[in-house]
Amino acid sequence: MTEPFGEFEFIRWIRQRTPAASGVALSIGDDAALITSASDGSILVTSDLVVEGVHFEFPSATPTLAGRKALAVNLSDIAAMAGEPTSAFISLLLPRQHGRTFAMQVFQGIEGLAAEFDVSIAGGDTNSWSGPLVISITLLGSPGRREPVRRSGAADGDWLMVTGRFGGSRFGRHLTFQPRVHEARKLAECAELHAMIDVSDGLAADLHHILDESRVAGIIEEDAVPISDDARNCLDGRSPLEHALGDGEDFELLFTVSETDGRKLLATQPLDVFVSRIGRVLPGSSCQLVTADGTARTLARLGYSHPIS
Amino acid sequence: MTEPFGEFEFIRWIRQRTPAASGVALSIGDDAALITSASDGSILVTSDLVVEGVHFEFPSATPTLAGRKALAVNLSDIAAMAGEPTSAFISLLLPRQHGRTFAMQVFQGIEGLAAEFDVSIAGGDTNSWSGPLVISITLLGSPGRREPVRRSGAADGDWLMVTGRFGGSRFGRHLTFQPRVHEARKLAECAELHAMIDVSDGLAADLHHILDESRVAGIIEEDAVPISDDARNCLDGRSPLEHALGDGEDFELLFTVSETDGRKLLATQPLDVFVSRIGRVLPGSSCQLVTADGTARTLARLGYSHPIS
Repeated sequence: MTEPFGEFEFIRWIRQRTPAASGVALSIGDDAALITSASDGSILVTSDLVVEGVHFEFPSATPTLAGRKALAVNLSDIAAMAGEPTSAFISLLLPRQHGRTFAMQVFQGIEGLAAEFDVSIAGGDTNSWSGPLVISITLLGSPGRREPVRRSGAADGDWLMVTGRFGGSRFGRHLTFQPRVHEARKLAECAELHAMIDVSDGLAADLHHILDESRVAGIIEEDAVPISDDARNCLDGRSPLEHALGDGEDFELLFTVSETDGRKLLATQPLDVFVSRIGRVLPGSSCQLVTADGTARTLARLGYSHPIS
Repeated sequence: MTEPFGEFEFIRWIRQRTPAASGVALSIGDDAALITSASDGSILVTSDLVVEGVHFEFPSATPTLAGRKALAVNLSDIAAMAGEPTSAFISLLLPRQHGRTFAMQVFQGIEGLAAEFDVSIAGGDTNSWSGPLVISITLLGSPGRREPVRRSGAADGDWLMVTGRFGGSRFGRHLTFQPRVHEARKLAECAELHAMIDVSDGLAADLHHILDESRVAGIIEEDAVPISDDARNCLDGRSPLEHALGDGEDFELLFTVSETDGRKLLATQPLDVFVSRIGRVLPGSSCQLVTADGTARTLARLGYSHPIS
């Protein structure tokens, strides 16, 4: 038998296990938190919501992995700006039928990853209902000593580069991926990053986001796209390359640098994960995919966009 | 016939109608927004999530009113700290079957209230699914020139005071209420606010929040509780007073001040809404409700707590 357990008890439980943190003057237990920003007063802010049935399913995900993913996708957004995550605000919509153990496991999934990245949990909101699990997180970060890396900085002649491999994340990587926070900051130390994005919608779709925002064109070398083993194991008739370009939720970094910086990164490989060149930036507004024999075709905006109607 | 309309088109539509704002260096269209804080680097942050079937129902609410409420509850939290709201981050989970007009109306409800309070919409996340509408908003604010007013500052001898009237908000006021942002700042100019909260869970429950956080006791004069006409019109057998103490979602301010400041506020009535005294703060840890003839009983923690199990 479990004792009655409501919103206030859950918040009390969260509050007891949430230590005081530097930069958070007021935290859980008041109407709003009070945050102290970096010395120049600038703060990065990102919000991402994940929901059962769309971004994860039970039982292939656990409550802990669902919580972890909700924070991980937000960490990935701060990584894409080469920022340093600082504090998280967590709004939960909990399925009433799953009870307190489930609620605690979701929170522990968030909490575990937060601790890994030195993120303090500074506030949020808890609700319960008869529907599925919804987790909405807003993550604050510091831009660090440099300007944040935007999507719009890609320039003619830049190399298009990526961390890691792509495709087939639905086999599990979409839940367990390591947000590239440290990798992005290391890259920003080793090179002048012109533009960067984290690959959530899909390599092709997110490449288009960078090219559109930067008002440039791109050319991708088909053979240079790093394909994950998962993408090769998809037995649905689509090619591993199609999976790599379109699947999404890889949460790797896609970025552009000068050719000089690009060559340096390829030679030194400063990260734990492999860095590769997949193409380059040109003037114009299209995106071409070229094969080894030089044939070019337009790269469609594959990737996922939630239909609204 | 409507043209296909997806997440990216909706974000484009939002972006086109969202003007550049001071204090928001980077906004919608990148992985994170870049916010500039007030001169001392401190920022208030609050997150609140509202959901169809829990916080509003269709058709008694419209999509516009649902959007409005989602921002209004967050504005009310910033008001409770006597802060000035600055920028909002909006995560939407849209019911796919309602289509684009519905999505736009929800956004317009948020946008209209944001404009009224000079809040810029600086980012967010859009998803669609087969479930009901979920709106999660994180609102940032500036504490202004003063320290934020916390829940924990109530002291022995303080007067317990409120704005407005209580009870029966479900007849419509829970959707249309005016967040007390300007009122809170005006109060902070006229008096030294020791503790403050916005009444969302219910007058009794939120009073207990202040007393608990401040480690003091309280005494409420039954006849002094301002009861709304809506509470008097509830024909469910519970008394108007019970409704006023327990219903919640009044989103009025409950605050404590010294007796001197309290007398001044009663005499000058500096707000457009009526300010009244409902009781006072004592040493100890209980909360008593006294009738006109002097009979006292313990004030239960009525009010709503979302059951998790």
